Amino acid sequence: MEKVKKIQSGDVRTASRLIRNLEDGSSEARATMKHIFPLTGHSHVIGLTGSPGAGKSTLVDGLVESFRKKGKTVGVLAVDPTSPFTGGAILGDRIRMQRHAEDPGVFVRSLATRGALGGLSKAVGDAIHVMDVMGKDIVLVETVGTGQQEVDIMNHSHTVVVVLIPGMGDEIQAIKAGILEIADIFIINKAEREGSSKLRREIMAMLDMAPESAFQAGWRPPILKSENAFEPVSFSKSLDELSDTIDEHYKHLVKNGLLGSWAHRKTSMELNEAIRCSVLDPVLNSLVANGELDVMIEKLMKKETDPYTLAEDIAGRFLKTC
Amino acid sequence: MEKVKKIQSGDVRTASRLIRNLEDGSSEARATMKHIFPLTGHSHVIGLTGSPGAGKSTLVDGLVESFRKKGKTVGVLAVDPTSPFTGGAILGDRIRMQRHAEDPGVFVRSLATRGALGGLSKAVGDAIHVMDVMGKDIVLVETVGTGQQEVDIMNHSHTVVVVLIPGMGDEIQAIKAGILEIADIFIINKAEREGSSKLRREIMAMLDMAPESAFQAGWRPPILKSENAFEPVSFSKSLDELSDTIDEHYKHLVKNGLLGSWAHRKTSMELNEAIRCSVLDPVLNSLVANGELDVMIEKLMKKETDPYTLAEDIAGRFLKTC
Repeated sequence: MEKVKKIQSGDVRTASRLIRNLEDGSSEARATMKHIFPLTGHSHVIGLTGSPGAGKSTLVDGLVESFRKKGKTVGVLAVDPTSPFTGGAILGDRIRMQRHAEDPGVFVRSLATRGALGGLSKAVGDAIHVMDVMGKDIVLVETVGTGQQEVDIMNHSHTVVVVLIPGMGDEIQAIKAGILEIADIFIINKAEREGSSKLRREIMAMLDMAPESAFQAGWRPPILKSENAFEPVSFSKSLDELSDTIDEHYKHLVKNGLLGSWAHRKTSMELNEAIRCSVLDPVLNSLVANGELDVMIEKLMKKETDPYTLAEDIAGRFLKTC
Repeated sequence: MEKVKKIQSGDVRTASRLIRNLEDGSSEARATMKHIFPLTGHSHVIGLTGSPGAGKSTLVDGLVESFRKKGKTVGVLAVDPTSPFTGGAILGDRIRMQRHAEDPGVFVRSLATRGALGGLSKAVGDAIHVMDVMGKDIVLVETVGTGQQEVDIMNHSHTVVVVLIPGMGDEIQAIKAGILEIADIFIINKAEREGSSKLRREIMAMLDMAPESAFQAGWRPPILKSENAFEPVSFSKSLDELSDTIDEHYKHLVKNGLLGSWAHRKTSMELNEAIRCSVLDPVLNSLVANGELDVMIEKLMKKETDPYTLAEDIAGRFLKTC
């Protein structure tokens, strides 16, 4: 397929258009993915998450530079689940990454919440596949926020980096406990700030409480730090340390035969998302197209029926009884 | 129905068990909801959201007290979308609300991300219905975090209160722009802190930029403030002001005939969620039960096929072609 060959050769325009079309739920793009999928499996996928304000963009920027110095090509996917209204302008604007704009070894895209039904996590999975087939050694997925959606997105990654900053208060610490279990590496950013050692001790304490089985083959998430981004030398040094640790984590997965179970989990998630698209979308589209959904909503508003009964009827009509 | 009658009489044990069973996706609980739904429509549903650390729990606690003083009964639903791992212990632990534990006019439940498929927003909608039929005048839904899921949850509310605190930095402000459009009332909590006036000016500026059509029948979201929670008199005064403003917003909806369009939007969302449950769950359950899903995952891992083709085949098998 011509399009796929272009993507394999790293063509930025073709890849960008495909990612955009996937985000829009185009069926042609979906058909292209059938040819993309079998070619995937090359990239090391790294997820980077943390509270808003934790300085993730700056870290990603520095991390890209560090990987480039090692001769690796990098795809960056900035995912913004914050708002269906702003259309994801937040990350889109932030991720300028001017420094890397001229570097053909770096490909940056941002994804926002748009087509609600297909799901953001599915769009992320597809975009990672495209960057993988483009030949990127590293795909960096950056996301913002907390919640199930963030966890879903992070599940696409081999290595999850959780970014924390000192002095965010107790409640924030509690929420961090929720992402503790998806973290492979912690990094305390803005570590020159007050409260850095306290935060470090708190993470250590959380890790101490976790059962041994929480650590993949004994990988206890290391706690790194990065200091003032405005002191280029020390910042760059901390980012090199981060990229080395990320490489170590991947080697750990390989050495302990953990890539297989990772791929199993990720494939299962991906199949679930694809089924949701294929099964649910046609039903909803059909009900919208003939105006039936509107009639049902009217009946519900008059309390003439209830959504549970209606949904069962719909299942009866659209699903085969096999 | 005996169970429904008990709930109508305000029986806490029956209501709690139903909410728990709905969260678990029990089909019996679902059947009960068919009898609950037609009885709903009494409660004023208030959503309260904001960044982690904004002090939402303390506000909810004070707000409950303020509504109780006015003789209104209150249901509180603390929703924790933070983590599928911790099982929502975060909010669960926080929401002790000891002060109200002995008050039969207050019913508190927390909901967490558990059964992933049905969706948290659906569980929230169901739990609101139950509290509604219990006869609660007010149902307060508190959630944490940002993202599409938060917006979905807030869509169940007549009145959305967004809690902000001073001094959270620029990036946080940007994210707030995403929830600007769902806010009916802003409250600046911990307003004694530095940066309170600056934050107020920023919200004003955001509202100034919004088109007139963004405001429902001219309701420009007021910006309230609440000061130090440890000074009971002034805190209580600010919470009374908040509850008054919430009442005013509801009156505004009634006076301008906006309850109908609200109900339409909410009903539509609820029907969509019910359809997802009824159509998608049986397909996935069937594929899991006969072990087919596992075989597919194996094939995908060997790159013998792709998820897009498999999902289309599944749709072809399970969906009638009508």
